Parts: sequence; C-alpha cells; structure tokens
Amino acid sequence: MKPCIVWQTDFGLKWGAVAAMRGVCKQVDPTLECVDITHEIEQYNILAASREIMYVEPFWPKGTVFVSVVDPGVGTDRRACAAKLKDGNYIVTPDNGTLTHLFYQVGIDEIREIDESVNRYPGTEDVSVFHGRDIFAYTAARLAAGVIDFNGVGPAYPIEEIVLFRQDMIKAQVDGTTIKGIVSSVSDPFGSIALNILSSDFKAAGCRHGDHLHVTLSDQGTVYFDQDVLYEKSFGYVDVGEPILFDSSTNYIELGINQGNFRDTFRVKAGSDHTFVIVK
Amino acid sequence: MKPCIVWQTDFGLKWGAVAAMRGVCKQVDPTLECVDITHEIEQYNILAASREIMYVEPFWPKGTVFVSVVDPGVGTDRRACAAKLKDGNYIVTPDNGTLTHLFYQVGIDEIREIDESVNRYPGTEDVSVFHGRDIFAYTAARLAAGVIDFNGVGPAYPIEEIVLFRQDMIKAQVDGTTIKGIVSSVSDPFGSIALNILSSDFKAAGCRHGDHLHVTLSDQGTVYFDQDVLYEKSFGYVDVGEPILFDSSTNYIELGINQGNFRDTFRVKAGSDHTFVIVK
Amino acid sequence: MKPCIVWQTDFGLKWGAVAAMRGVCKQVDPTLECVDITHEIEQYNILAASREIMYVEPFWPKGTVFVSVVDPGVGTDRRACAAKLKDGNYIVTPDNGTLTHLFYQVGIDEIREIDESVNRYPGTEDVSVFHGRDIFAYTAARLAAGVIDFNGVGPAYPIEEIVLFRQDMIKAQVDGTTIKGIVSSVSDPFGSIALNILSSDFKAAGCRHGDHLHVTLSDQGTVYFDQDVLYEKSFGYVDVGEPILFDSSTNYIELGINQGNFRDTFRVKAGSDHTFVIVK
Repeated sequence: MKPCIVWQTDFGLKWGAVAAMRGVCKQVDPTLECVDITHEIEQYNILAASREIMYVEPFWPKGTVFVSVVDPGVGTDRRACAAKLKDGNYIVTPDNGTLTHLFYQVGIDEIREIDESVNRYPGTEDVSVFHGRDIFAYTAARLAAGVIDFNGVGPAYPIEEIVLFRQDMIKAQVDGTTIKGIVSSVSDPFGSIALNILSSDFKAAGCRHGDHLHVTLSDQGTVYFDQDVLYEKSFGYVDVGEPILFDSSTNYIELGINQGNFRDTFRVKAGSDHTFVIVK
Repeated sequence: MKPCIVWQTDFGLKWGAVAAMRGVCKQVDPTLECVDITHEIEQYNILAASREIMYVEPFWPKGTVFVSVVDPGVGTDRRACAAKLKDGNYIVTPDNGTLTHLFYQVGIDEIREIDESVNRYPGTEDVSVFHGRDIFAYTAARLAAGVIDFNGVGPAYPIEEIVLFRQDMIKAQVDGTTIKGIVSSVSDPFGSIALNILSSDFKAAGCRHGDHLHVTLSDQGTVYFDQDVLYEKSFGYVDVGEPILFDSSTNYIELGINQGNFRDTFRVKAGSDHTFVIVK
Repeated sequence: MKPCIVWQTDFGLKWGAVAAMRGVCKQVDPTLECVDITHEIEQYNILAASREIMYVEPFWPKGTVFVSVVDPGVGTDRRACAAKLKDGNYIVTPDNGTLTHLFYQVGIDEIREIDESVNRYPGTEDVSVFHGRDIFAYTAARLAAGVIDFNGVGPAYPIEEIVLFRQDMIKAQVDGTTIKGIVSSVSDPFGSIALNILSSDFKAAGCRHGDHLHVTLSDQGTVYFDQDVLYEKSFGYVDVGEPILFDSSTNYIELGINQGNFRDTFRVKAGSDHTFVIVK
C-alpha cells in the first residue's frame, strides 16, 4: 500500500487547479490516493499554512507525503523543497516559512531542493505560474509511488537554511502564573480562537480545570477583552453565550463562547497584533 | 472490498478537522476509503443532519458505514452510538436526533452505545471537544475495516431510547384532497424548497401531473405565498420565472421557480414555522 | 486498474447530490474512484462548464471518464450523450454546448446518445430532475467499470449534430500585430482574467516576453481599461499592484495584478460583452 498524498493550498475549489494536480499524480501512478486538508487557506498567508498542516500531520500514518502550496513567490528564486520529518512523514512545499510549525513541533531530519531537471512534469517548462501542478504534485507523486526515493528529490541543503517565522509567533511566554502570547488561529468555523500555548504548558503554569483565570486581549496594545474566564475541558461547562477557556483538539488552549462565536463577537484576527495575557 | 465510510458534519472545509478524521481512519486501515456527503450542514442543526443523510443513504451499497457529526452536546452526557439499519447500512453518530429520518424511513435494527474504553483513538483521553475524530471516526473505521464487528461497538440499548424529533416534522397530514405540512428543507442550491410529503402520498391524495393545485405558504401563520401552481414532472413545464410543483429526485414534492430561486424570492426557511397547505 | 471518473457540476457541496451520484457509481462497481474538478460552476453556465473541463482534461491519464453536468434543460429533449475524445478520454454529459472547447481543442472521435432503456439507474423512471445521478453517473460508472464498452452507451449520431457555441467565443482573431477577442474566464481565485488567445498564437503575432503591449478592455463597447502592460512569464516581474500579461498554466494569456485582483478591481465579467484589443 503506497502512502497517501495529503494536500493543502490557497487555490480554492471553484476551478480546475486541484483536479489538474491530481491528474498529474494519477499519471505518475494511477494507484495513488490524494486527500485534501483544505484549499481555503487565506491567500498568500504562509503562516496560516504552516500552522494548519501542523494540526493534521500527527494523525496520519507514517510515510504520508504532505503537499502545501501557499506560494506568493512562485516562479521567483525561493526554493522548492521536500523535507523528511523526524516522525517519518514527508512534506513537499515552497521553502518560504511553511515549514515553521513542523520544524518546531515535529522536527526536520533532512531537507532537499527539488531538482527541476528530473522532477518537473514534462512539457511545462514554459509555465512559471503553477509549480503546484508542475513541480510539487509531480515530485510528491514520484516520491509516494516509489519512482524516486528521498535522495531522488534533489540535492540536500543545511537545515539551518530553512526559512522560518520568528519563534515568538509559535510559543507563548510563561512567567510564573502569567502567560503572554498571541492569537495563533481564528480558523475554527465555530468561532473559537486558538492561543499559542499548549495545554501542557498551561498546566505547568498551575492552571487547573475549574479555575477562573483573568484573560486580557489586545489589538496593537488596545484592550478589547478583559474578563475572568472559567477554564474547563469543554465549552458545555458554561451557560450558552458565556466565554470559556478549554483544551482544544490540537492540544492548544482555545477561547470560545458556548454555542456562540468569539471571533466574530470580538472581531479577533490572528497574528502578532492580537496579543493575550492570562493571569492565574 | 471493504465498505466506504461516508461523512457529513457541520465542520466546514476551511481547516484541518476533516483531514484529521480521515488520517485516523487511515491509521486504522490504510485501504479504507472516505467519501464526503457535505461538511456544510448548518451549524448545530441536528434536524438538517437527520434529513440530509436520508437523501443519500439509499444510493450506497449495503454495508456502507455512514458517519454524521452535528454535535452541539459533544463532551456532555448525550450518547455516542452506532446504529444498524434495516437495509444493511450502518451509521455512527451522536444519538441526539440525527437518527430521526432514518428511523422513520429506513428503520433501525439495533443500536449500540460506543464503548470509549476500547473505541477511542489512543492518546486523546484528555480531549473532550472532538469526538468526531477521537470516537466517531475511530469507531467507524474499526467497523468498516472489520477490526470489530457490530457487537464490538459497545453495549446494545433499547430502540425506544433513541432520541427522535417529533413525527409531525417528518410527515405531512393528508385529509381528503387537502395536504398540510412544513417546509422540510431549503438546501437545494437551485433554490427549490422541499415539502414533507412524498410523491406517492401526493398521488394517493389524487394529485396528478398537469393539475393546477392551490398552494398556501405561511410563516408563523402569516401567509406569504398563495397561488395556483402547476404540478408536473420537471420545472421545464412552465415558463422561466414561473412557480412549479414537481417530484424531486428524493421522492418528495418540491416547489420551485423555473430557472429562478423560490427560496430567495420568498425568503423561505425550513422548519415548523414555515407551513404549507395544498388543496386540489 | 480501472479509470477514474472525474466530475464537474453546478450542484454545490452543501447538500447530498454529489454523494448520491457517487453512491450510484459504487453500486455499479465498488472499486471505482471518483474525483472532483469542481461543483461550483456558475449555475446554468454551460459555456463555463465547457471551458473549465478543457483546462483539466489534458492532465489525466488516457481512458479517464469525465462527467460534466450543467444541465438547465434536464428532462427536456436535449440529448444525453457520451463522447470519445481523440486523445482517448471519454466525457458523459448533456449535449448542450458543454462539448465546445473539447471539440475545438482536443477533437471528438465518436458520439453516442445514452440509451436510457439500459443505462438508467433502476427505479428512477419517475424522476425527471436528476439525470446527473440517474443517467450520467450510472452510464459513466458502467463505462469506467467495463460493464459496457463505448458502443454500449447507445446509438452513435453524426459529429456534425453536436451542439457547439460560436467559434468566436473560443478563439481570438489575430490580424498582424493586433489581437481581438473576449474575456473567456474570470474563475481564477487570485483574480486574474483569461483571454481567449493561446500563448502560442500570442507569440506567432510577434509578442515577446519583455514587450510592453497596449491593452484595451471594453464592456459592450465602453472602454474600462486602456494601458500599456508588460508581458512576462510570471506576475512577479512587476511591482505589487501593477498589471501584467502572462502565460497561464493552461497555455492561455492571462491579465492580472501582482498580488492584487484584476477581476474585482475592474469588475470584469466573462463572455462576449467583455472584449479586448491588444496592439503590439
């Protein structure tokens, strides 16, 4: 059984781009199976791509080949690469910051630049705007099918050269019982927002289910949320409409409203402008 | 050939939730195939979930394992269950009303509560907000893969304890040549609305193709549509822009506008507030 | 290995229509794999359907069975057909103009009208509004599974009887160094618009990467864009926010804005009202 190719892009599903990439995979090997994470990553938002794939990657069998294409620099000199993760999975992507969360959370064993002279879909040499199809899909399919091994991707380069976002985007700072960080994701369709602190770090800071913690949210320094909030294991522990801190399914702390939409209610966006402070 | 796992949720496809559930299935057995119905059920709308799966279920081979996760009570005391339908298919779902339409239209042979001590994805014991991944996906995959048989889901409980919506949400009342009921669905993307009366019941009430029937629609008792409408086998039997009653692809009567959008034109919503009366 | 069935419709994914069609395929043969192009073709827009499938078709292995259902005339006397393309692929579709681009770009070897007496999903004889499921899915699955060969679709009819859009919708006119045509597609999610001229024709007219070309866009004769624009191989050759002509991934010329949205900025629509003139 060959590994699946698991996809995320910012291409959307209203046109044929995704199906063209899948066709290329089927031409390499008709037994390959492609599965989607999402094609609705915010356009050009590389940090979101980095974060989203981290949530999914641990739940797939080892050997899975992930492909992430959020690639505003397509056709320029950013590297096209494949990385071998420390847990045995692979990811094929532009090396433009997409690897950040996997680098810090899973670890990267080895990284190789795709050699276009062998790993480009034949006949597309004149096309510079669709590496998703012509280079990433083709290379991922060849890797998943066993046409090439990881060495066959192209020349290795130093792990230190991988393009990464600043680490303070990734991990909150814990100082005694005060935790400071940023809103890392607002992609939950139910409107909960994800903070950049792990449940385990939260517990290490002394926070326990049943505690009421003081939560402050700011946008560029201007406070827009400032309340005591219950920390529990699910949102059903407060009345409908009440805010709640809970352990998300991805082991990060989320802040939501029971059967309401925290993101829309408080107009929260992701990123370093939206910071939080939690005090026990 | 193992049965497919066929999915519906209210999770959307803008993040990785669905892909995480699929990864869990592939970890159980990499040969399993997952197929989507939709992940765009209106959030928390259990009645819509119940109705939508009924439209799809009859068209799949016997033995198919359906999964429906519209689960506002996740992590509370609602039961997580698997049901064996009278036609040989299975459905894994919270027992929160989702089984209503299948109960009345197909019938349920046996129902079992999922035993989390064996049928929970290992390592997720601390997560209470994503049973779709940790319990429903994992159990469905084990059932589809043959790792467990239906008895292996967990203890059976009485059919009478299944949570059901009121039957008047399901079936219209026929009294001579007068039919009263509710708008059961407005999910048709072309804007036709589905009434809760079967084509067969319509015919039993004496309605024939070519008849002009008097149709009244009310919202909480206030009439907003009151016209004679042709009943035919397709919408092309009236001029573009004219209303039409026709037999839908799911054997229910629908009310539409030829190449127009009845739902948007008359601002129709689904549910018991929106009632209809048809007189022959 | 049986060929894939590759789909496009205007049905959307918010309800179970697509999953019902897939279930029918699985009933014909559980080993068949269905893959989506898109279900978001603009409703009733047959020309868009014709164009979108052309972009995807060349990237699939020979023998693939495509299905396109944009079918405002369902249940009327338009033909339901299957075509064998000159490159060895098949397409199952209403013969309502959907075959136009494939006819001109790939060529059609043979066309057959679907014989509903054998190629209709049993038990749906009373349904006239869902040929996607009852006729197209069922016939495509039987063809892909080898239950029938191409002759088994139904009687052949003359290629000349295929319903086609006007050829001036398909190909721009090149007159010396002046090119006139229409906006053929605005479906690119990044907001670039596709013109109905191939990169090869553009080059034959003497246009070279690095040239500044004069581009005029009109809506029903009223000019709304009139500028010199650089022609290059990717959008990154101009500053962010500047317009650019480039070779798209489908070998047509596109007009975009680097990291901006040309379609939304200039409110461009597809079709014969929106014409262009390019002068070298």
